[in-house]
Order: sequence, then C-alpha cells, then structure tokens
Amino acid sequence: MLFDIEVKISLKRGMLNPEATTIERSLDLLGYKVKNVKTDEIIKFQMEGEDREVIRSNVTDMCERLLCNPVIHDYKINVIPQNMACGK
Amino acid sequence: MLFDIEVKISLKRGMLNPEATTIERSLDLLGYKVKNVKTDEIIKFQMEGEDREVIRSNVTDMCERLLCNPVIHDYKINVIPQNMACGK
Repeated sequence: MLFDIEVKISLKRGMLNPEATTIERSLDLLGYKVKNVKTDEIIKFQMEGEDREVIRSNVTDMCERLLCNPVIHDYKINVIPQNMACGK
Repeated sequence: MLFDIEVKISLKRGMLNPEATTIERSLDLLGYKVKNVKTDEIIKFQMEGEDREVIRSNVTDMCERLLCNPVIHDYKINVIPQNMACGK
C-alpha cells in the first residue's frame, strides 16, 4: 500500500530565526506592519508499506537521522494511506 | 482585529527541486525507499486589520513583491481571524 507522508518541521520555541526576522523587517520597509513571523518547512513524499505504525516509526527515524536537527527542530509527522487522501 | 496569516509556498509543477532530490538520494543511502519528494515553505505571521478581504489583498501584494517569486512559485494564502483560530 502506498502512503502519503508529510513532515512539518519548525524551530523549537526560543530559537532565533534570522529568516523570519529578515522577512518582518523587509515587509516593514515595504510598508506592511506584521508581527510574530514564523517559518516552517514541509517535506512530503510517498512510501510503500503495509502498516501505518511501521511507516510512522520509519519516518521518525528519518527525521532523527536526516530530515531534522532534533536539537533545534520540532517535527510533526502525518501518515495518510493513499486511498484515504482527500482531493485526489 | 488581529488576523493569523499563513502563506504556503511551493514550487510550480515542473520546476527542478535540488533540495528534494538530495533528500530522496540521502534517504536512499540510509536504506529508506521513498519517492515523489516535495518541499514547501510556510510563512506565518499576524496582522492588524478590520476586513478579511483587505488583509488578503495586502498579503497577495506581499507575496508578489517579496515573499514569493511568481515565476517559479505557487502560493496559497490562509487568513484566520484570531478569535476563530482553533486550539487557542
């Protein structure tokens, strides 16, 4: 069975985010007043497997080993069996 | 009224995504077989305003002028009035 995987990676609370700071300052220079800018990254992919929990545990390993830096990042994993995906 | 804004930026279909290619290859080297890797970016911020449609049009301007490159990026804008946000 094919699974759609979505990993949402964000910086842990309190980590400096220079990208967000730059966006906020640049928008301000253009005349837009915004606050609390945050940036997240989403990595989506597909994986073959039989069991949702096995997939989830594999993806957790991927996050810890490659996709995230567990020291500074939080991540959320979403595993959706292909036939349950919406809008397809 | 305070609005929560979420801008989801993805590459247009057909654009090369070296980051995704690298992720796919690296996961393969670690023994994980995944396919169709895609990456998106989410920029979240807050903005004061009275009218949801005015906010949305401002954010569209921000996207065209600063946040995205309209030549290579697609973007989706989500405007949520603060008191309607879930989980707060």
